[in-house]
Amino acid sequence: MPTGSSSMSRRDLLSMIGTVAGSAAMYQAMTTLGFAQESPFTGSLKLDGDPKGASVLILGAGLAGMVAAYELRKAGYKVQILEYREVAGGRCWTIRGGDKYTELGGFEQECKFDEGQYLNPGPWRVPYHHHGVLHYAKEFGVEMQPFNQVNHNAYLHSSKAFDGKPQRFRHINADFNGHVAELLAKSTNQGGLDQAVSTEDREKLLDALRGWGALDKDYAYVKGVDSSERRGYRVDPGGGQMPVAEPSDPIGLSEIVQSGLWRNLSTGNLYEFQTAIFQPVGGMDMIAKGFEKEIGDLVTYNAKVIEIDQDDQGVTVHYVDSVTGGEPKTATADWCICTIPFSVLSQVKTKVSSEMQAAIDNLPYAASVKVGLQFKRRFWEEDEHIYGGITFTDLPNTLISYPSSEFFSKGKGVLLGAYSWGAWAMQFTSLPPEERVKKALEYGAQIHPQYNDEFDNGISIGWHRVPWTLGCYGTWSEDSRKAHYQAASSIDGRIAMAGEHISYIPAWQEGAILSGLDAISRLHQRVING
Amino acid sequence: MPTGSSSMSRRDLLSMIGTVAGSAAMYQAMTTLGFAQESPFTGSLKLDGDPKGASVLILGAGLAGMVAAYELRKAGYKVQILEYREVAGGRCWTIRGGDKYTELGGFEQECKFDEGQYLNPGPWRVPYHHHGVLHYAKEFGVEMQPFNQVNHNAYLHSSKAFDGKPQRFRHINADFNGHVAELLAKSTNQGGLDQAVSTEDREKLLDALRGWGALDKDYAYVKGVDSSERRGYRVDPGGGQMPVAEPSDPIGLSEIVQSGLWRNLSTGNLYEFQTAIFQPVGGMDMIAKGFEKEIGDLVTYNAKVIEIDQDDQGVTVHYVDSVTGGEPKTATADWCICTIPFSVLSQVKTKVSSEMQAAIDNLPYAASVKVGLQFKRRFWEEDEHIYGGITFTDLPNTLISYPSSEFFSKGKGVLLGAYSWGAWAMQFTSLPPEERVKKALEYGAQIHPQYNDEFDNGISIGWHRVPWTLGCYGTWSEDSRKAHYQAASSIDGRIAMAGEHISYIPAWQEGAILSGLDAISRLHQRVING
Repeated sequence: MPTGSSSMSRRDLLSMIGTVAGSAAMYQAMTTLGFAQESPFTGSLKLDGDPKGASVLILGAGLAGMVAAYELRKAGYKVQILEYREVAGGRCWTIRGGDKYTELGGFEQECKFDEGQYLNPGPWRVPYHHHGVLHYAKEFGVEMQPFNQVNHNAYLHSSKAFDGKPQRFRHINADFNGHVAELLAKSTNQGGLDQAVSTEDREKLLDALRGWGALDKDYAYVKGVDSSERRGYRVDPGGGQMPVAEPSDPIGLSEIVQSGLWRNLSTGNLYEFQTAIFQPVGGMDMIAKGFEKEIGDLVTYNAKVIEIDQDDQGVTVHYVDSVTGGEPKTATADWCICTIPFSVLSQVKTKVSSEMQAAIDNLPYAASVKVGLQFKRRFWEEDEHIYGGITFTDLPNTLISYPSSEFFSKGKGVLLGAYSWGAWAMQFTSLPPEERVKKALEYGAQIHPQYNDEFDNGISIGWHRVPWTLGCYGTWSEDSRKAHYQAASSIDGRIAMAGEHISYIPAWQEGAILSGLDAISRLHQRVING
Repeated sequence: MPTGSSSMSRRDLLSMIGTVAGSAAMYQAMTTLGFAQESPFTGSLKLDGDPKGASVLILGAGLAGMVAAYELRKAGYKVQILEYREVAGGRCWTIRGGDKYTELGGFEQECKFDEGQYLNPGPWRVPYHHHGVLHYAKEFGVEMQPFNQVNHNAYLHSSKAFDGKPQRFRHINADFNGHVAELLAKSTNQGGLDQAVSTEDREKLLDALRGWGALDKDYAYVKGVDSSERRGYRVDPGGGQMPVAEPSDPIGLSEIVQSGLWRNLSTGNLYEFQTAIFQPVGGMDMIAKGFEKEIGDLVTYNAKVIEIDQDDQGVTVHYVDSVTGGEPKTATADWCICTIPFSVLSQVKTKVSSEMQAAIDNLPYAASVKVGLQFKRRFWEEDEHIYGGITFTDLPNTLISYPSSEFFSKGKGVLLGAYSWGAWAMQFTSLPPEERVKKALEYGAQIHPQYNDEFDNGISIGWHRVPWTLGCYGTWSEDSRKAHYQAASSIDGRIAMAGEHISYIPAWQEGAILSGLDAISRLHQRVING
């Protein structure tokens, strides 16, 4: 509606655009006017211009390599991929019953999960704003389902607080919010914030604090219906003449701040974990399989790269069979996209500039471990009413994640029983696989005593022992970004690096996808410009 | 591990119980020791004792009536149900393409949704602690999927704030938390809360506020990576040499408190809406169909009750065909469970005590309306990256809910375009159905301009015009509970009332289920004792 002022409001403008030009134009205008935000992913890549038969050799059939292959072939390039493993996907990986996996050092594990059960050793979540991953998942018909990141009925656990007894997330969350709101209301009412909060805002802030924090009419967070409508009741309301509801007792602020359990209250508010967040139905590698169906014909599997050479004319790569060894073979192309993790590439003779070599040699990779545990029944659902979500603990297993699929099913289930980083990951990984499983069971049983009776079998992946990555992801420090990222991400002669490590979203599949798309965009410009 | 103290810790006790008696005993002990909370639903009903051929006539095949029928037949009773409609379920109802619905006043609508699309006019969510509903859903094999209640990328909208421009939930949420944390940190640092927060707690509270509110090292909530890691970036981080990320600008506290948008920040923390929360795959009536498959043979459909009589010997109910009318028929039984909403029952001649009659006559029913809108494409996903969840607005449509199923599908989609209560529901319901749809479109287009181009068809249910409920649910005030609930929930001669209105969880299916279970439990005691 017209505002009466001489300048057109943004809404008036939008309304006019909508009427005249339809909703697509309207949405474009919304973006321009700041309604929408910018994403580095701008839709399916258009590589205009004729590559005139140029060839590209891609090293690694993970997501970065596969998205590059997929888009380059569409644009008219000759493409070949060398992949170390027997399947595509890289860290986009799912382990299922019957799968065998041999880690560095020779430990072999065979997964004993039942049919339909799985563990994603690497990425396991796709946030709603990872537009690249979601774009290709949709294009390839990969079915997605919500990943429950936050579960108010899961636990926060500290072995040093509450006598080691796990606390429901909803209790700590509601009580922390309630106490914060009460304290701030008190301060506001006492005039302690008169310089920070204007008179006009004061009453509304108090209203907001009362509503948000579940305070009573006197701005106090107390036992009663208001607080129990957040934290849950001691006895839930019922039907007919069942026992009447009883409110539950809030936990004091001091106990909460001393417990440290507030540390995991905000994970669901983080940009990367906030709703909506997804997982592919059936396992993360459904995304890899989607790509592989498209470009699997371009892949030479079991190819271990042993040397990368280049000159003004092109790139020559020497490789051997990663299983049988034998005589080296050679692949050549005009250009190369290398997605081999720097942790591995630093051990491969590679002809690149000294700046690039320094980048390769100076990127540490994070230690991380995951342990998957199959149980005979879904006791977390049946006994404890936890359907998906994550329990956080200060024990070395760090967390327990409950499956976000097959809810209420009567059969077995697989928990992510440990997902640890840094020193704890090193500790886990230093043990033989069966000992890692035992440790995860020992820690988890302190939260779920049912572990002792219900355990079926387990499997573990310590990323430092994964032969084809030697670590979980590339950990840039602020200093190392300054020193090496520009070189690492530049086309070096005829070689461009790609992968999560060549991105500002390391460890995430979106980083790999965007890195792959960015590398081929710049490569393409170089090719068509001469 | 032993603590060295002479008294056994709860954990030691549990550990011992677990070792000696297994995990089921352990879980029992956990409950006893306060690890678990009490639910009024204690598992599948055991009605011990022989009812010796007693018969029960149930009025209404909604969830209360059907759960009563299911359990009573299992316990050996002769059961018959009279149902007004042509199908079972009552308010557990789903409308799909091809369904026709005639409301009070004669307006007939035919749903034009495409196959697979639906609207739940009544209940649409099942919280994780509605153990009764979830128990039977599991027993009948009803597949459940997560309902996205909170979506950080959906909107909060006020026509009176931000120039009418909808705000992403994540922006208001992150900024509200950030400002609250900053203000409280300031007050704490200035010593304004020295009486409320002990010296030992102060540093930890400050740590907690910084972490929780995304404050910087000086306890300020400012533009930067910390705040953007909650609210999202202006330009997201990318791959390779894509434009570098740019943080977004937080909104000031004053704008947020003045906007009123904080009102809907907490819905996802409410006990009834917090995660995990579910919907049946394919529509809420899958639960009704689960019951109907079990006890449908007991139901006389299209039976409109016109009189309920009782004496010392039993109950006699007169009914006519609800479609064709005609001669009254009669059903008799030893006992009666009446689930007819009091809004309807108050118009039926019923032989009950004056106390019960007063309860029946004095329960107002809430006005509520839902409008379902089918669109030609899922523009909320494709253009705005909103996958499930709810946008709240101060316009009379109150909210827009995005489907929590078929994410990323390329076809059409149905939005809940209005879900309003009270005066706004009255306003909507006073209009003819097509006008309600128009209103919902007009309001919604202020949030999603794509409405104008993409609308396909719509349908609306105003609960005050639903012939078999004449309202949405029974709204007990504190006073009316005191005056009438005891009578309403007592067995009156040979008649017991059941339904959501005979519960402390009105409007929820759990209230209906628990009410039905409670009524038959008490009825059964009376039968076997006398």
